[in-house]
Amino acid sequence: MKLKIEKEILLENLNAVTKAISTRNIIPVLNGIEFNLEKKGLYLTATNNDITIKTFIDKKNIKEINEEGKIIIYGRYLLEIIRKLPSEIITIEEIDGNKTVISTKNSKYNLNCFSVNEFPKIDFKETSNPIIMLSSTLKELINQTSFATSLQESRPLLTGINMKIIGNILECVATDSYRLAKKIIKINTPVEESINIVIPARNINELLKIIESEKDIEMHIFNNKILFKYDNILFQSSLLNGSYPNTDNFVPNNFEMEVEVNLIDFYNMIDRASLLAQSKDKNTIQISIIKDKLIVNSSSQEAGKVEEKIDIINKKGEELKISCSAKYLLEALKTFETETIKLYFNGQIKPIIIKESDEGTLIQLILPIMTY
Amino acid sequence: MKLKIEKEILLENLNAVTKAISTRNIIPVLNGIEFNLEKKGLYLTATNNDITIKTFIDKKNIKEINEEGKIIIYGRYLLEIIRKLPSEIITIEEIDGNKTVISTKNSKYNLNCFSVNEFPKIDFKETSNPIIMLSSTLKELINQTSFATSLQESRPLLTGINMKIIGNILECVATDSYRLAKKIIKINTPVEESINIVIPARNINELLKIIESEKDIEMHIFNNKILFKYDNILFQSSLLNGSYPNTDNFVPNNFEMEVEVNLIDFYNMIDRASLLAQSKDKNTIQISIIKDKLIVNSSSQEAGKVEEKIDIINKKGEELKISCSAKYLLEALKTFETETIKLYFNGQIKPIIIKESDEGTLIQLILPIMTY
Repeated sequence: MKLKIEKEILLENLNAVTKAISTRNIIPVLNGIEFNLEKKGLYLTATNNDITIKTFIDKKNIKEINEEGKIIIYGRYLLEIIRKLPSEIITIEEIDGNKTVISTKNSKYNLNCFSVNEFPKIDFKETSNPIIMLSSTLKELINQTSFATSLQESRPLLTGINMKIIGNILECVATDSYRLAKKIIKINTPVEESINIVIPARNINELLKIIESEKDIEMHIFNNKILFKYDNILFQSSLLNGSYPNTDNFVPNNFEMEVEVNLIDFYNMIDRASLLAQSKDKNTIQISIIKDKLIVNSSSQEAGKVEEKIDIINKKGEELKISCSAKYLLEALKTFETETIKLYFNGQIKPIIIKESDEGTLIQLILPIMTY
Repeated sequence: MKLKIEKEILLENLNAVTKAISTRNIIPVLNGIEFNLEKKGLYLTATNNDITIKTFIDKKNIKEINEEGKIIIYGRYLLEIIRKLPSEIITIEEIDGNKTVISTKNSKYNLNCFSVNEFPKIDFKETSNPIIMLSSTLKELINQTSFATSLQESRPLLTGINMKIIGNILECVATDSYRLAKKIIKINTPVEESINIVIPARNINELLKIIESEKDIEMHIFNNKILFKYDNILFQSSLLNGSYPNTDNFVPNNFEMEVEVNLIDFYNMIDRASLLAQSKDKNTIQISIIKDKLIVNSSSQEAGKVEEKIDIINKKGEELKISCSAKYLLEALKTFETETIKLYFNGQIKPIIIKESDEGTLIQLILPIMTY
C-alpha cells in the first residue's frame, strides 16, 4: 500500500474514525485504524466492537495512489503525528508487510502495524427505507434529551435514549428515574412498521462530535444496531437490548398551576441560588410562587442563605412551595431557546413540567424533593 | 459596615485578593476576606500566612459609604456570588455583628461571617529604596525561569527562584538539578547592599496572574519577605530560608560546538519526535549534528521510531550525537522569542546550553541523558 495525500484531508477523516477507538480497549488490534486503499479511493475504519466508524476519501482527493492494499495503524499515535505535521503532502507506505512509513520532506515515522487478519470484519448493511433528517435536527433531538440519561450501569437501559417512531411521529425519551426529557418531531416519510429502540447515549454523543456541517443524515435501523450515513461517513452503533419502560403516562395533561417566566432570568436566579445550596450533589432549592413573584430560596449551613425573585409574566392557579434539585433544573432549562418558558405544577409532591408553551414538543420533567 | 458599589469594581478586586486563599486551608478564618471600610475607601485583605494580598478601592469608585467598619466574609463563596450577579449596584451590609447581607434588586444573600478578631494582623512594611521595574519586565523574568524550579518538596530551596542583585545587575536562576534557567537584566537604580533571596515560585506565579496591564511595579525586599506594589495592590510573599546553591560556574564560557537553528522549526521537530519517545515522563530523544543537518531520532517499543531533520543555519565544530529529555528541551525553547537560537555543546556528557545569541542574557541549560 502506498499513497500521497494532503495533511488536512487525512486529518479530517482520522478525527472522525478515531471517535470509535476507546481508551480502555484491551484487544490490541482495536487500537488500530484500517487503511484500505482501492482504485476508487481510501477507506478508513475503526471499531471498538460497539461503535464502528468508516470514512471514504475519494481518489480525486488523493494526490497519488501508488499501490493498493490494506494496513492497520495504531490510531492514537497516528492522529497525534498527523496533527503535528506541517501542512504538506504526506506519503504513507507499507514496508516489509508489518511496518508503515509516514513521511514528509523532513520527517520520517516508522510505525509498527497490527496484522490485517486480526481486524474485525464489519458489516455495514443498509435498509431500503432509511429515515432521513437534517443533521441539525438530529443534533437538537439528542442534545435536548441525552443529558437526562442515567450514568449508572446498574440499569443499562436507562443509559440509552428511547427512540419510538409511529407513522411520521418520532419521539425521543431519556430518563434517569429522577427526571425525564422528551422531544417529539415529525419526519418526512412515515414508517410502515413502528420502531422502538434504545440507542446508547455515549455512542450517539460521539456521533454528534463528528457532525459539523448541515447535511442530510440517514438512519438505517435494525433490531440490534443502527447505521447513520452522513457525508462520507458511516457511523454504526449497537443498540441496548430489552424493553424500555413505558413513559407515556408520566407527563400529565392537566395542571393545577401554570407559570410563565423569562427563561434567562429564571436560569440565572437558579444558578446563583445553587451556590449556597446544601449538598453539592443534589443542591436542593425551594421555589415559591406568591402573587406575581417567583421566589427561590436555598441555604447552606456553612455559608448562609439566599433569596432570589423574578416577576411572573403569566399565571394560572394560586400559591405553591416546591423543592427540587437546582442541577436538574438548570440542565433542563439549558435545552430551551425561547424567550419565555412555562412551568406546570400539580402540588408539591407531583412532577414539575417545563415546556416552551402549551403546544411545545419539548418536555422536561423533574421530580420534586420532599423537604420537611 | 455598609456600602454600595458597582459589581465590576468589586469583582476585579476580589479576583486579586482571592489568589491568597488556598484551597487546603485548615484554619477557617483564612478562608475569609477582610473588608475594612474607612472614610477614604475600602481595603480588602486575604492571606494564607504565606501570601498576603491587600487591595484598595478609593471612595471615588464607591457609590455610597453608609457606615464604616470591618467584616470577614467567606472568600470563595463571595467571589462566585459576585461573579454571577448581574452588572448592577451591589449593597453590602453587616447585620447582627456576625452576618453580612449582599443584595441587589432581586437577590439577597445572607452570609455567615468570621470573627474580625481571629483574622491575622498583617504588617506591610516598605523599604525606602524599592527596586522598580515595568510589570512586563517582571513577568518575562519569572516566565523565563520559574518553569525550571523543582516541584519536589524534598529540596525546598529548589522550589524557589533565586534572585541576586549586585549593583544594577539583577539575575534570576531556577533549577531542579536536571536543568537550569538563568536571566540577567539591568535595573535603573543600583542597590547599595547586594541582595540574594529565594522567592517561592508558586507564590510569584500567583502574582503574575494578577498583573494585567503595563505599570511600574515596586519590589520591597526584606530578609524574610518580599512586598510587591502594583497599581492599587499590595502583594506580600514569604521567602525561602537557606543558602541557594552557587550556580555561577554551571554555565561554561567555551564550547566545542555551536549550532544556530530556526526556533520554530526546531521546536516543532522536537514536539513531533517526542510523540514516539520511550518513557512518558522523560521522553528521551537523540540529537545528531551531521554536516549541515540537525537530526532528531526517537523511538518507542510499542509504536515505532521517528527521524526528523532541519537545516543548520550556522555551525562551529564537527559532528555530535547527544540525548536529552524532549520535555525539558521544549520547556526551555518556549522561553525564547527570537527567530533563531543557538545551541552550545561540549561533547555528549556535558550540559547543553541554549541562548538567543552569544550575547544573550537568557540562558537555558539542560543536562544530557546517557544512552548506551
